[in-house]
Amino acid sequence: MRKILIALIFIAQATFAQVAIKKDLVQYVNPMIGTRDMGHTYPGATVPFGMVQLSPDTDTIPYAVNGKYNPEVYRYCAGYQYDDKTIVGFSHTHFNGTGHSDLGDFLIMPTVGKLKLNPGTADRPESGFRSRFSHSTEVAAPDYYKVKLDDYDIMAELTATARVGFHQYTFPASDQAHIILDMMSGVYNYPDKNVWVYVRVVNDTLVTGYRQTEGWARNRVLYFAMVFNKPFTSYGMHNFSRTEPYHGFWGKFDQEHDFPVMAGRQIRTYFNFKTRAGEKLKIKFALSPVSMKGALNNLHHEIPGWDFDAVKERGQEEWNKELHRIEIQSDSRLEKENFYTAMYHAFINPTVYMDADHLYKGLDKEIHRADHFTNYTTFSLWDTFRALHPLFNIIQVRRNEDMIKSMLAHYRQSAFHMLPVWSNSANENWCMIGYHAVSVIADAIIKDKVDFDANKALEACVTTADNRWYGDLGYYIDKGYVPEDKSSSSVSQTLEYAYDDWCIAQLAKKLHRMDVYDRFTKRSQSYKNLYDLSTGFMRPEMSDGTWMKNFDPLETNEPGFVEGNSWNYSLFVPQDPKALIGMMGGNKRFIARLDSLFTMQLPDKYFAHTEDISREGIIGNYVHGNEPSHHIAYLYDWTNEPWKAQKWIRLILKNQYHAKPDGLGGNDDTGQMSAWYIFSTLGFYPVAPASDQYAIGSPAIKSAVMHLENGKTFTIQVKNQSDKDIYVKKIILNDRPLHHYFLSHQDIINGGRIIFIMSDNPNKQL
Amino acid sequence: MRKILIALIFIAQATFAQVAIKKDLVQYVNPMIGTRDMGHTYPGATVPFGMVQLSPDTDTIPYAVNGKYNPEVYRYCAGYQYDDKTIVGFSHTHFNGTGHSDLGDFLIMPTVGKLKLNPGTADRPESGFRSRFSHSTEVAAPDYYKVKLDDYDIMAELTATARVGFHQYTFPASDQAHIILDMMSGVYNYPDKNVWVYVRVVNDTLVTGYRQTEGWARNRVLYFAMVFNKPFTSYGMHNFSRTEPYHGFWGKFDQEHDFPVMAGRQIRTYFNFKTRAGEKLKIKFALSPVSMKGALNNLHHEIPGWDFDAVKERGQEEWNKELHRIEIQSDSRLEKENFYTAMYHAFINPTVYMDADHLYKGLDKEIHRADHFTNYTTFSLWDTFRALHPLFNIIQVRRNEDMIKSMLAHYRQSAFHMLPVWSNSANENWCMIGYHAVSVIADAIIKDKVDFDANKALEACVTTADNRWYGDLGYYIDKGYVPEDKSSSSVSQTLEYAYDDWCIAQLAKKLHRMDVYDRFTKRSQSYKNLYDLSTGFMRPEMSDGTWMKNFDPLETNEPGFVEGNSWNYSLFVPQDPKALIGMMGGNKRFIARLDSLFTMQLPDKYFAHTEDISREGIIGNYVHGNEPSHHIAYLYDWTNEPWKAQKWIRLILKNQYHAKPDGLGGNDDTGQMSAWYIFSTLGFYPVAPASDQYAIGSPAIKSAVMHLENGKTFTIQVKNQSDKDIYVKKIILNDRPLHHYFLSHQDIINGGRIIFIMSDNPNKQL
Repeated sequence: MRKILIALIFIAQATFAQVAIKKDLVQYVNPMIGTRDMGHTYPGATVPFGMVQLSPDTDTIPYAVNGKYNPEVYRYCAGYQYDDKTIVGFSHTHFNGTGHSDLGDFLIMPTVGKLKLNPGTADRPESGFRSRFSHSTEVAAPDYYKVKLDDYDIMAELTATARVGFHQYTFPASDQAHIILDMMSGVYNYPDKNVWVYVRVVNDTLVTGYRQTEGWARNRVLYFAMVFNKPFTSYGMHNFSRTEPYHGFWGKFDQEHDFPVMAGRQIRTYFNFKTRAGEKLKIKFALSPVSMKGALNNLHHEIPGWDFDAVKERGQEEWNKELHRIEIQSDSRLEKENFYTAMYHAFINPTVYMDADHLYKGLDKEIHRADHFTNYTTFSLWDTFRALHPLFNIIQVRRNEDMIKSMLAHYRQSAFHMLPVWSNSANENWCMIGYHAVSVIADAIIKDKVDFDANKALEACVTTADNRWYGDLGYYIDKGYVPEDKSSSSVSQTLEYAYDDWCIAQLAKKLHRMDVYDRFTKRSQSYKNLYDLSTGFMRPEMSDGTWMKNFDPLETNEPGFVEGNSWNYSLFVPQDPKALIGMMGGNKRFIARLDSLFTMQLPDKYFAHTEDISREGIIGNYVHGNEPSHHIAYLYDWTNEPWKAQKWIRLILKNQYHAKPDGLGGNDDTGQMSAWYIFSTLGFYPVAPASDQYAIGSPAIKSAVMHLENGKTFTIQVKNQSDKDIYVKKIILNDRPLHHYFLSHQDIINGGRIIFIMSDNPNKQL
Repeated sequence: MRKILIALIFIAQATFAQVAIKKDLVQYVNPMIGTRDMGHTYPGATVPFGMVQLSPDTDTIPYAVNGKYNPEVYRYCAGYQYDDKTIVGFSHTHFNGTGHSDLGDFLIMPTVGKLKLNPGTADRPESGFRSRFSHSTEVAAPDYYKVKLDDYDIMAELTATARVGFHQYTFPASDQAHIILDMMSGVYNYPDKNVWVYVRVVNDTLVTGYRQTEGWARNRVLYFAMVFNKPFTSYGMHNFSRTEPYHGFWGKFDQEHDFPVMAGRQIRTYFNFKTRAGEKLKIKFALSPVSMKGALNNLHHEIPGWDFDAVKERGQEEWNKELHRIEIQSDSRLEKENFYTAMYHAFINPTVYMDADHLYKGLDKEIHRADHFTNYTTFSLWDTFRALHPLFNIIQVRRNEDMIKSMLAHYRQSAFHMLPVWSNSANENWCMIGYHAVSVIADAIIKDKVDFDANKALEACVTTADNRWYGDLGYYIDKGYVPEDKSSSSVSQTLEYAYDDWCIAQLAKKLHRMDVYDRFTKRSQSYKNLYDLSTGFMRPEMSDGTWMKNFDPLETNEPGFVEGNSWNYSLFVPQDPKALIGMMGGNKRFIARLDSLFTMQLPDKYFAHTEDISREGIIGNYVHGNEPSHHIAYLYDWTNEPWKAQKWIRLILKNQYHAKPDGLGGNDDTGQMSAWYIFSTLGFYPVAPASDQYAIGSPAIKSAVMHLENGKTFTIQVKNQSDKDIYVKKIILNDRPLHHYFLSHQDIINGGRIIFIMSDNPNKQL
């Protein structure tokens, strides 16, 4: 009997699995979410964690004009702004939701008629090769983007594999059809950003080359191989570099027409065709961080044929599979759109950074082979240590391990002997503060078995944290705080170092390295040094031990802070909320403080200083668009009024995430904002990664099933779910009532079921 | 008996060989020859065909000032000018004797006292880091250079292996001793020549990095690894780039002091030490065309230890071995200096261009492995096809084959499907005209068995010669000449193409490809199309078939010619002197013409137009410093007055080559001038490479032994040798009198002995 039962279960599971795969979750993804204003997302084609992000660029804003920063550029971090009326072309690399930018490599634009090699301007598109377009012809879906280029009557369609962009352009009949390959265009372009570009026409369907830039990634080279599905009849380029005194003996040739090596600092190239009406001109465009040869190999490896629809189909299946890692039930289509778009945005970064043959360019500018792992880049760790990597630690465990292996490779290749801070394309850009890679590493090792050397990982964390030159760590180590007169962002740095040090201590404890544990536990107490009892806030301190004068806890950024004011940052002790509450006068005063944060009226003058957050991104003085606040609502769980967490979390979910182009309250920050949404929608959040604890909030869906990589599932069921019934009345975990507002990682990863019973009244006692 | 005889011979040979090796031919090499004015040689350290040429640079002349060419730069093609009074530093790469330039990578300068990061000026050396020096402290020998840097009381010594420069600086006692590594300095430097430089401090004795330049080689990257024999105490850099609007987040660090990644467009770095009096600070500085890792591997491979003298000793042994390929006897020390310095200069280029592990950067910008050959670069083929490669074909056969394999690799990697024209550092710079690689290839295949695929080599030659876009070959192919109204250097081009085509035809004949033979034999007749019977000169022709008006056969360069006037160029039919003589009116008129060439008075106005040739470089209207004339004196051998060849050749040898700094009549041209000297001194010359014939001149030594790679020797004995006895009275080849003025390649390569009996009277009949 027993055997039969098992067989039945097996069949049931198999059937379920099949049904699951058939569900098309891709339909709920709306890549347009976040493309207006400050979301900094892009609508184009990419596969999960893909190297290629093939997407339309709608302007060509220079980063600087006459050596002066051009603030307009900020809107174009992802290349696309929803309100724009023209498309300049389709480039192959884009960041998702960053607050600074780079990339936009290899812009392709199909045109007909007289060849134009300048992009033109948005107000006079006919002055250049850009085209008008309208959202009515636009389709944006996972791994598929479509738009009509009105000025040329060309239908553009894009899809991609991990390393290859696939363009399909349906042309009108024309004797003058062109594909422009703009080697100058880029996101955050300043006049000297291009260091060198090289284009090599191998034959009349194959072109290879590379672009070397000095941008956010300071020392970056990206290679390509491009093939056409029909031969071009002629080709050429124009070199827009300032005239150089030295041309050697190349000057005796006409290098602008049909000359197979095109190189310089600023060039645009073009390829000419004759097209029949309705003819589909297709381009496969492969990238490589290693070489042109590597790009060509990627191309052959990933897209051997010319079936655009099949590649799109495969990409969408890939997305569907990833989206199925969490299946939710909700009556609201918009909620599903929000959720699965958040899942989509969470699964874009970090990005694969190696060729199909596992070769990649390292931080040390050498070519390495990734043995038994996939090398990733695009680590926006100040953002993503909070919720994105913890999310991966539940539903993308293997990838997260490979990401950590990539960080450890970065460490080994670092002249600074540092784990990544914000790394991209074999470059460290040092963006933001802290050394939060240690949080990601500790979180993984503490929560599960890992297949990398944990002791070496600890060594990397310790060495990183002992780099005295970095971010004024020397002062921090010696004095227990970063002095404001010695360094910028002194409070933010001190608080984040303290948390990171606690992560290292936890990791050391797990590995029985009590010497390290003791040292870093001590360091992790440093946050206490900056608590000013007289004001009740974390406050910048001078190197002589006196508090900074003229302290305004509402002021964001300098002095003392970055991307958060003291009101928010003073609560950044995720590693020990209990101690924080005690330090701040106990339960009652702490609750009052949190209440004030969410309800106070922030004077107008502070909005201007709250970088890249729309006014809607702020609730009272709580700034959801900036990460330092992400754990704050959950801090109520450590007080005796956890129901307030539930209230504010539901409000944040409702106010800060909308299924429309301007639906994000701030930059998506390579998925961190989305990861917050996913966790909070499911009803819990990792307040302190590197602990195994999740704080419970208020689940916002009817049910969810998390498919874990160990084959188990964790099911969330929510009874009496509604917009009013936002308070948790009762929680039943695996058939037993829960009497606190915390889940452990084991609760989830071992599989099981949690049932939330909701009500419209705050519940004082579970 | 017979066996015993053989044994005795063997012993005799062995003894001879030992004696030979003990002779120190290195003593006769004077690297200073050619370092004054136009020789464009350098005095520094290099091994035969080495990748490193570590040599002092005496000025920092920019290629252009305010976008305008600075003619002063021309004197500095090799970095050093004998008359200069200051040394700026020691850089690792230099061309030998070129007439255009590049390189000068990675300038090292040791200093003491206040750190200066500008080179200063020659008239005010104390304004920068350069130092005064005097020739009295200077020693220049093969693979060894020594000089006192007077301003710092530092004795500088340099030696090198193929890929590693070895510096030894004997310092005074100083608390402020510096090694400056100037990443901006270079030969033919213009403000934007540096594309990007990168320096990485791995630890306190190891530094790696690279320099990317846009120079004569347009797209060049050279990597390095540098180790010190003691740790530096601190280091830093200054970035001289114009201010860039974008600094990312690097701006928050002090990148100028002890910051281990130093990158940008224009930087100079320095490393600080404390030195005791007489302390030797040593630096091993390895190069790689592939990667920093490759450079480091080269370093460990070639110089594992720190014994400077042993490395120098090994380098000089290597030179001694190469110099021994030809042993001469002469009563004149100066003649030996001339001869062995010519051998030295002949064995510098082409240069090794691959790492110890056989990886190299290809023309296609990909990393390749040289399987079973050494990859070379620095092919100045317009110069070297004439005598240098034919010389290699006798005494450097294996290297010459590897050079051809390198050219064939270049061909395979060429987007143009072209053999090299003038190639360096994985770049084609298109300098000069013709496709003379085909001459080198045909010469090798015709003269001996080769271990590369001769048929594929023929295919490469044919494809190269059929590139209609290159150098107006389309016109040449269609019309049988390059029209002057369509192209520059039309006559020079036509004549050289015709010769090259003849080479291809000879090669095709050897490979029994009679279709190719017929086609290229026909093309090789094209020189006839430009012979203007009315003037008796090769003359520019227009595309309508009329002769160019206002033709001046004395005018060098445009119109019609390059590096030679019509007087000289009209004689450029080396493949068929008989036909040339016939075309020009027969024996008598041809002799008169040659006589005029050597004896006429060239009006002053033409000197200015005779590029880079000192007035002494001209005999009558014969310009030895420019290669198109190199075969001319030997043309008398095809007339009935060969004794005139003997006369002029001895005069050229005597007038154009002197064992002193200004001893060369023109640029050494990567060894071609030296190869002419070597051949002519030995008594014969390859008038038409790709034939197996050598024309006999007048040997200038008492005897010579050529040690061939097949183990045989070819001995030249000259009886009655003196400065007056310049005429060949009798020739005995292997005990038989010779009745003509030609040797075949087999005569030489089979070994044997030639005896010249000289006299002071012209000999009318052999």
